[in-house]
Amino acid sequence: MSSKLTRLIDVAKLAKVSTATVSRVINNSGYVSAEVKERVLKAIEELGYQPAKAARFLAKSRQNFKISIVADDWVLKSITTALDEFYSIVYKGIIDFSKNHRMSIELQDISSWDRGVDGFLLMGGGITKELVKEIKDTGKPVVLVDQYIPGLKVDCVVSDGYDGAVFAVDKLISKGLKRIVHIHGPLSHFGFRDRYDGYVATMERHGFMPRTYEFDEISDNMGVIIDMMLRNYGKPEAIFGSNDTAAIRAMDELKIRGYSIPEDVSIVGFDDIMSASLITPKLTTLKIFKYDLGSIAARRLFNLLMGEETHPIKISLFTQYIERESTI
Amino acid sequence: MSSKLTRLIDVAKLAKVSTATVSRVINNSGYVSAEVKERVLKAIEELGYQPAKAARFLAKSRQNFKISIVADDWVLKSITTALDEFYSIVYKGIIDFSKNHRMSIELQDISSWDRGVDGFLLMGGGITKELVKEIKDTGKPVVLVDQYIPGLKVDCVVSDGYDGAVFAVDKLISKGLKRIVHIHGPLSHFGFRDRYDGYVATMERHGFMPRTYEFDEISDNMGVIIDMMLRNYGKPEAIFGSNDTAAIRAMDELKIRGYSIPEDVSIVGFDDIMSASLITPKLTTLKIFKYDLGSIAARRLFNLLMGEETHPIKISLFTQYIERESTI
Repeated sequence: MSSKLTRLIDVAKLAKVSTATVSRVINNSGYVSAEVKERVLKAIEELGYQPAKAARFLAKSRQNFKISIVADDWVLKSITTALDEFYSIVYKGIIDFSKNHRMSIELQDISSWDRGVDGFLLMGGGITKELVKEIKDTGKPVVLVDQYIPGLKVDCVVSDGYDGAVFAVDKLISKGLKRIVHIHGPLSHFGFRDRYDGYVATMERHGFMPRTYEFDEISDNMGVIIDMMLRNYGKPEAIFGSNDTAAIRAMDELKIRGYSIPEDVSIVGFDDIMSASLITPKLTTLKIFKYDLGSIAARRLFNLLMGEETHPIKISLFTQYIERESTI
Repeated sequence: MSSKLTRLIDVAKLAKVSTATVSRVINNSGYVSAEVKERVLKAIEELGYQPAKAARFLAKSRQNFKISIVADDWVLKSITTALDEFYSIVYKGIIDFSKNHRMSIELQDISSWDRGVDGFLLMGGGITKELVKEIKDTGKPVVLVDQYIPGLKVDCVVSDGYDGAVFAVDKLISKGLKRIVHIHGPLSHFGFRDRYDGYVATMERHGFMPRTYEFDEISDNMGVIIDMMLRNYGKPEAIFGSNDTAAIRAMDELKIRGYSIPEDVSIVGFDDIMSASLITPKLTTLKIFKYDLGSIAARRLFNLLMGEETHPIKISLFTQYIERESTI
């Protein structure tokens, strides 16, 4: 092994590939042909390159890390106006951790991010697969926040929808309810898919029939969905919504049709948005820990910058079941 | 807020509950009645108790942490004989991290664990819900390793079966294969359920029909399953096994029946056990990073001991697709 600090660029030169390719080989992320991989690994061996050590050395010799939060317009607005109840709290978690760990934060729009920083936090559902690949190619550490893209193998921090759904459905069943309907957002979003899978697995485990309706809050009318459900399936004993918005709208439509909540139908949401505890009856829901989402993502990025435990991971925060008035 | 260091036990005394109950309230884990919770929170406020600060203070004033790895007989034997290709490598990851972080490790059997340590790593599929609850009640940090129990909300580190399954099925489909069968272990094990969900979601996303067969390696005969599949479903273009053992046995039975691998049927496994690269043809599979599983679990326990980011999380390590000879 060479004793001087070999750089990524030396490895790239010797292997006749880009630094992004070397980074892909080191991080085991993205496609690299077997032949190119072999060449990179040989170069690493020949030069005695030690990525973790190099990163740590770099990290410890620095006074400060410059971090960029990249997000779409809507998320950025949520952060800066602090009116939103979700991303502004996640942001607070990031900021508080960063203050204590020599990281300075800047905000960048997805359409105009620049590479002059040490690491990236990519935040929210607006982060696409293409954008992640592009930013990963800089070779700098990347952590997705409140977003996960299956099969990409990029570090991410999300809330655990599967676990929350299992907990909520088990809870309803423990009260003797069997006819539990799930109203969910588009399954192309992993967050909704995850909750859906947890609901279906739990119903099956108890021997009950899963019954699901899709509701896209941008284009669908909840009244139409509730009428369809009542006509084809009958009155459910409980409705589990894949977010609070869907649960609250379902509750409204049932109340309009003369049903009492929770006597006739129990309702459970997901997220714990502010209105969940302001409406009547107050909504039972699964609380997402937004502040912790931010601080845990910031710590993960910090670990990566320090070259510690760099194997890519997905971190899922458990939710908490908050029992209010919309369930028996 | 009181300036002196208030202890958990002071809070418990004032609230007239056990320290385990105080710990449950602080960690938001396990059942606590609303009335008791209220009392504990009041006591915490009154005494100015700061659990994170207390833990950090304690941590920094200590020379060494004593950690116990609790596992069943089979896992402990795997570790101590170092013959096993899985848990002995996970253990190596734990040991290497511990050496650099003032943690000493001892091994304990699930039937005779003792509370005289600072934290616990509970390892393997033999860890039950009841055991986790019992050990959590000591109020000490706990991390499950290679085990996750839905709904319990206890820190855990596992490999990401869902993501691996999505990646593998996408890969097979990208080669023009459509009739992909999944042979899976018992779905009561979360590890198998997770891979199953990833397979089903990916087939559905592409508009293909999922087709699954359950195979319990302890009691089922793979020959019988393969005959049933050939009779009822016909020849598949690919088989995705939920572990390497299932994939290898399916491959053997197909070869006995005159099929060529991968020309007639492509085969993909999960785990990357040693025999996967020794058989003919060599098995394409999803590699689990066993060493990293151990070191990441040890770091998580260390963070908890230091009172850092204590909100309970599930950490899933992404797998890597290793393309060998059993796939076209």
